[in-house]
Amino acid sequence: MTSFAAWAKSAQERTEAALARYLPATGIAPERLHEAMRYVSLGGGKRIRPMLAFAAGEAVGADIERTEPAACAVELIHVYSLTHDDLPCMDDDALRRGKPTCHVHYDQAIALLVGDALQSLAFEVLAAPGSHTDPAARVEMLHLLAHAAGSRGMCGGQAVDLASTGKQLELAELEFMHIHKTGALIRAAVLLGALSAGRLDAGARAKLERYSKCIGLAFQVMDDVLDAEASTATLGKTAGTDAAQGKATYLTLMPAKDARAYAQELVDDALAAAGHFGARGARLADIARFIVERSY
Amino acid sequence: MTSFAAWAKSAQERTEAALARYLPATGIAPERLHEAMRYVSLGGGKRIRPMLAFAAGEAVGADIERTEPAACAVELIHVYSLTHDDLPCMDDDALRRGKPTCHVHYDQAIALLVGDALQSLAFEVLAAPGSHTDPAARVEMLHLLAHAAGSRGMCGGQAVDLASTGKQLELAELEFMHIHKTGALIRAAVLLGALSAGRLDAGARAKLERYSKCIGLAFQVMDDVLDAEASTATLGKTAGTDAAQGKATYLTLMPAKDARAYAQELVDDALAAAGHFGARGARLADIARFIVERSY
Repeated sequence: MTSFAAWAKSAQERTEAALARYLPATGIAPERLHEAMRYVSLGGGKRIRPMLAFAAGEAVGADIERTEPAACAVELIHVYSLTHDDLPCMDDDALRRGKPTCHVHYDQAIALLVGDALQSLAFEVLAAPGSHTDPAARVEMLHLLAHAAGSRGMCGGQAVDLASTGKQLELAELEFMHIHKTGALIRAAVLLGALSAGRLDAGARAKLERYSKCIGLAFQVMDDVLDAEASTATLGKTAGTDAAQGKATYLTLMPAKDARAYAQELVDDALAAAGHFGARGARLADIARFIVERSY
Repeated sequence: MTSFAAWAKSAQERTEAALARYLPATGIAPERLHEAMRYVSLGGGKRIRPMLAFAAGEAVGADIERTEPAACAVELIHVYSLTHDDLPCMDDDALRRGKPTCHVHYDQAIALLVGDALQSLAFEVLAAPGSHTDPAARVEMLHLLAHAAGSRGMCGGQAVDLASTGKQLELAELEFMHIHKTGALIRAAVLLGALSAGRLDAGARAKLERYSKCIGLAFQVMDDVLDAEASTATLGKTAGTDAAQGKATYLTLMPAKDARAYAQELVDDALAAAGHFGARGARLADIARFIVERSY
């Protein structure tokens, strides 16, 4: 078996190549919009969500080409949300993935449209002819992604985040926010990856639900730790912004040492769930471990 | 047969009731986001796109309840686009449907999230369990809506519109913009309404394509005429903004009299296409006539 580093690199390259195919070429009108959509989507990013989709696909025996639309659809939703989050009326961030953010490099109107159009593209990719081995499963995947992206998922988490800036949250409130803001899309990545293989039995689905919930929270705990401890150069985005903006984080509720221990506990729980899939769950386990060990 | 006015009122009420069901209740967290989503979506609007979906459904014999998800999905995309268009970085409009716009009544961050979440909800409604009499047709509908909303449809038209502000466009360039900015979604309303009945034969589809293209342009021509001639009170949105913002319109290319004649010509073409469906196409014909006769 290849190392996780080699597998991850190959998953990232596969994502990059597939996104480059799915995104309209810069020669197609309106050229500037398409150029800006490619600017924010290509050439960077950890591609954690596509990796999760590929790993979940592997866990249930999906052919990797069939997982590509799901992996890219989830990543497109993620990239759109970053583009909108960086706008002045939201987080007002100037740097993303080591480059000027979209509204800085282009302008706010383009950044707004780029995000809007990437969201549409996510659903277009997932509904495209050719990806329907089982149309009923495909409709289920589309419904799952739409729900995860919307007001009872990612957008809802954003709204809670906005409303809680400057407030001291309890742990339960903080986790409610994260389960929506980042957890919903991570869950969608895992379930869509697995559904790309066809229908899921209830036992496998329950394990994947457990796995996603744990790594979603662990990812967020580590994000808070890294935002406080790492440098802007390592992160590729402005560091220390949570504290500067008065945002509630795990580090306002517990010391960094305890936060790291909590992340480890969640990852151990995720590893147990990945174990259900035996050797085929190895990549799910690798990603869970990567989340607590990463430095960016 | 009931009058068009009675039919239109019933279609508007059906849309309002269905949207009120599909939109999350204000009691569901995050409450403020859900309240704002309902604020922009309910209690107003001409509901032209849902009417088109219902009329196209009628033309091919679809059961009206089965057309509701399609009618509402298209309207949700329309409402999200209005909410984002009104933002300061776009048209910076303070009035919409006779009420303060979302970013004025709430704030810009909420208006951004409201638009984002309404787009997701459109796809969620269309992919919801229970609406899949034929999952393959449903995936086709989802693909069609996503394409119409995205960078090669509505968002693309917006980008062209932005880029052309202050420029003198040729008629062909102006129509390229409108075919994308408003035409794509009008076409989606008509085709999704008809597809709600099941598969479409090629002949019927070609007539519906023709019908949509003509009424889409006619609608835009009349919008430009009304923006120049009507009052803010009649329109329910700020009048005269096109000229104030230096936007290319039909009235910068031809006198109002010629624009009205052009709209009539397009509508006559649409009426011929609606004629293909005999008596069942009566509502499509009514809507085409309404477009040139409306005053708001």
